[in-house]
Amino acid sequence: MQNGSRNFTEQSIVIVGVGLIGGSIAAAVRKRFPECKVIGIGRNRERLKRATERGLLTDWSEQMTSATIPHGSLGIVCLPVNQISIAVRQLADAGCELVTDAGSVKGCVYAALDDASRGRFIGSHPIAGSEHTGFENSDADLFVDRMCVVTPVNATRIDTDRIVTFWKSIGSAVQQMSPDEHDRVLALTSHLPHIVAAVLSGCVEAELLPFTGTGFRDTTRIAAGSASLWGPILLGNATHCVESIDAAERLLQKFREAINTGDGPTLESLLEVSAQRRRTL
Amino acid sequence: MQNGSRNFTEQSIVIVGVGLIGGSIAAAVRKRFPECKVIGIGRNRERLKRATERGLLTDWSEQMTSATIPHGSLGIVCLPVNQISIAVRQLADAGCELVTDAGSVKGCVYAALDDASRGRFIGSHPIAGSEHTGFENSDADLFVDRMCVVTPVNATRIDTDRIVTFWKSIGSAVQQMSPDEHDRVLALTSHLPHIVAAVLSGCVEAELLPFTGTGFRDTTRIAAGSASLWGPILLGNATHCVESIDAAERLLQKFREAINTGDGPTLESLLEVSAQRRRTL
Repeated sequence: MQNGSRNFTEQSIVIVGVGLIGGSIAAAVRKRFPECKVIGIGRNRERLKRATERGLLTDWSEQMTSATIPHGSLGIVCLPVNQISIAVRQLADAGCELVTDAGSVKGCVYAALDDASRGRFIGSHPIAGSEHTGFENSDADLFVDRMCVVTPVNATRIDTDRIVTFWKSIGSAVQQMSPDEHDRVLALTSHLPHIVAAVLSGCVEAELLPFTGTGFRDTTRIAAGSASLWGPILLGNATHCVESIDAAERLLQKFREAINTGDGPTLESLLEVSAQRRRTL
Repeated sequence: MQNGSRNFTEQSIVIVGVGLIGGSIAAAVRKRFPECKVIGIGRNRERLKRATERGLLTDWSEQMTSATIPHGSLGIVCLPVNQISIAVRQLADAGCELVTDAGSVKGCVYAALDDASRGRFIGSHPIAGSEHTGFENSDADLFVDRMCVVTPVNATRIDTDRIVTFWKSIGSAVQQMSPDEHDRVLALTSHLPHIVAAVLSGCVEAELLPFTGTGFRDTTRIAAGSASLWGPILLGNATHCVESIDAAERLLQKFREAINTGDGPTLESLLEVSAQRRRTL
């Protein structure tokens, strides 16, 4: 039994946005708690129907209303960062008891809520994903042994426990942070890598691509991600992203100085610190 | 039959440094041209014996002398960049007819040769590798469909054709460049990614590693590489590495400016250019 799953008491969850993450949450719940209703909300009825036929959803709707959301439901918004706060407000207005999300930035979501919806919201960020998209690539075990950051702000202990239990029930480890602390950490661990991968990819003209090897491929893989998804993430975490860029700049200048002056000991020491850290992963 | 293999006329090759690359060259030749002698030169007799028992080598020696190097041999130096030129000179002095290498930098190797050995040397850089090391991880097909850059300088057509044919015979595509052009290109496609991966890894304190995902793992994978191997590569290509760092800096500043000013269209345009380029790989 998954850690925490004995405490799982959800009768129904409402997933707004049934893509890779939303579909994987649905699959994770359906696999472990088949008695729990899983209602999908989205704009494309054909895709919602197919997700239902596939067994990911027990029901679906294009509307967020009190008619489509069972009493006591937990809402989970799995939309791009710039669409989360609107959906949270709609779910709260429609009577969802408690709402969370799966977005990569937290502060900007809280900031865009009104007081009423903020009182029903506890942000989450499951650090899990895939280069694939769409519910067709759903994985019921996507969150197993992955970290999920939960960011309660003035939330009750009961509500916080409910969200923590939910993520543990589908296999995640959970760490609580403030939204700002989350955003500061993820700027370094996720958003900066995306920016830097894009810079590397952008520095290599197309005619030089035949002279790249596995190192370039690994290092730039995430740069192929959707610009329309990543733009709002980076802008939603602008302050911390700029701080992380400046930190990277300072370290890059140390490498440049060591290389430019032929300072082998300093260069190897810089490389060794980074290598040791990476090897601990 | 591999492209070019019908032209393979080597009677014996001498591989100096039987690690992953040297061992894979040995395996590639043994698999395709079993009549060709493959002589391994190294410092560790136990490892050379084991590589011979494994069938990678037909003979081995700790010495580079005319006694251990058959007349007409092709020498291939598979040592770290800062040890290549010494070994090339030793092979040339010992009577090797023609010598190439497999190093990641070319200009500094040529610069360190004397006129006599330079006349017997044509540099090569097979853009292939693995995160694993040692002949135990040899792969006879490591070079198949991978690019190998060959950098003849004042070489005869016959010698150049011999080196080109060698790499094609074990499956590589071959592109000729000047040593400086090679170094300029590889600074962008290989050396800059290593520097940047090390910067990313160095920016994330150990206690934040639990909050990294697959993006960080991919982007920093090569940063785990050996500092003592990579230091000499970067210093051996210092001028072009500094140029590539400066190019990355300029592009990074464009991202910073767009994020800092909340300029969504510019940011998404920058991300999209990089994403498109990466997707063509």
